[in-house]
Amino acid sequence: MPFIVVHMWEGRTLEDKRALTRALTDAMVTHAHALPDALHVVIQEYPKENWARAGVLGVDQAAEPATEQP
Amino acid sequence: MPFIVVHMWEGRTLEDKRALTRALTDAMVTHAHALPDALHVVIQEYPKENWARAGVLGVDQAAEPATEQP
Amino acid sequence: MPFIVVHMWEGRTLEDKRALTRALTDAMVTHAHALPDALHVVIQEYPKENWARAGVLGVDQAAEPATEQP
Amino acid sequence: MPFIVVHMWEGRTLEDKRALTRALTDAMVTHAHALPDALHVVIQEYPKENWARAGVLGVDQAAEPATEQP
Amino acid sequence: MPFIVVHMWEGRTLEDKRALTRALTDAMVTHAHALPDALHVVIQEYPKENWARAGVLGVDQAAEPATEQP
Amino acid sequence: MPFIVVHMWEGRTLEDKRALTRALTDAMVTHAHALPDALHVVIQEYPKENWARAGVLGVDQAAEPATEQP
Repeated sequence: MPFIVVHMWEGRTLEDKRALTRALTDAMVTHAHALPDALHVVIQEYPKENWARAGVLGVDQAAEPATEQP
Repeated sequence: MPFIVVHMWEGRTLEDKRALTRALTDAMVTHAHALPDALHVVIQEYPKENWARAGVLGVDQAAEPATEQP
Repeated sequence: MPFIVVHMWEGRTLEDKRALTRALTDAMVTHAHALPDALHVVIQEYPKENWARAGVLGVDQAAEPATEQP
Repeated sequence: MPFIVVHMWEGRTLEDKRALTRALTDAMVTHAHALPDALHVVIQEYPKENWARAGVLGVDQAAEPATEQP
Repeated sequence: MPFIVVHMWEGRTLEDKRALTRALTDAMVTHAHALPDALHVVIQEYPKENWARAGVLGVDQAAEPATEQP
Repeated sequence: MPFIVVHMWEGRTLEDKRALTRALTDAMVTHAHALPDALHVVIQEYPKENWARAGVLGVDQAAEPATEQP
């Protein structure tokens, strides 16, 4: 019955979300012994002006490396 | 002073939200002995592409029964 | 499929929790059209030293009225 | 490594968010001994129809005092 | 920079948690393009008397199948 | 009416929590124009075996620098 909340920046594609939620679900089934039917994964997306790291908003940060989309 | 977070799919009407938050508040006052004035209920709505059950996003699920709007 | 998180002070009895989660579930079924089987309610309890209102921790507040156990 | 979630009504300006997340970060560094680089602050904004106090949605409340924008 | 919160019943072993958080991290790196160093996964464990499904607390539910430890 | 959740490792003293919640409250009043009386700050503490960074649980990490207690 676990419930997983992913907090991250907005901007992933539908295909990213499809693959991500499936992989997170597989991890829960394998390692937390969860039954898939009662397992929920939700994604909370934040605009860059609503997420700060080290006190600096995403909109004010220098560009991240290409592989990172927090 | 409790704080209640409702995670659910988007799509309820304003009237649904009005009745829902009032009923949740009544339940808290009756059974958790909360004072209404310090009791907050918030609704976090998710688009169907941000909520997966059993590893399948809402946008990819077969239609739910008419009574269910997760 | 909604997921409800109740943040409140620790201290309710098992019977309180039983009645509370049932009433919250009923409210969700009636007003948010949720199917009970996919509806989860969880309670996050906080010790009084981990909850502040108006900048004052619960352990430092004057006694609350008898009807309030936030 | 702390992670701070601010739940509040929508409507703050970018400048408010910039100053707020910086001040919250400073508070964490000073009083929780956090290293800034691993410290995240996120803001979850709610429309007034998704936040109820005392069982009354924000859209149904009388205007708040000028200094309050919950 | 994502932050993942896993809500589930208490009772997993340390080894389960070690494998689970590693697998969830791998899923985030692969499918959400996250940099591991800024990726946090936390586990919130609930006693069975604090989690209800279909309005019934975990302590009041009939035993789950052996493979399920929500 | 904001509600602030601080996710961090367990281990701060009562005096740390007292100073921290007061400073976070001050930041919210100053920069988010919140009224103190309706402002709540809660601390969710995690044992080191329930928090992973870069896929490594806190219990398995090398000692952090003295100034960091995530």
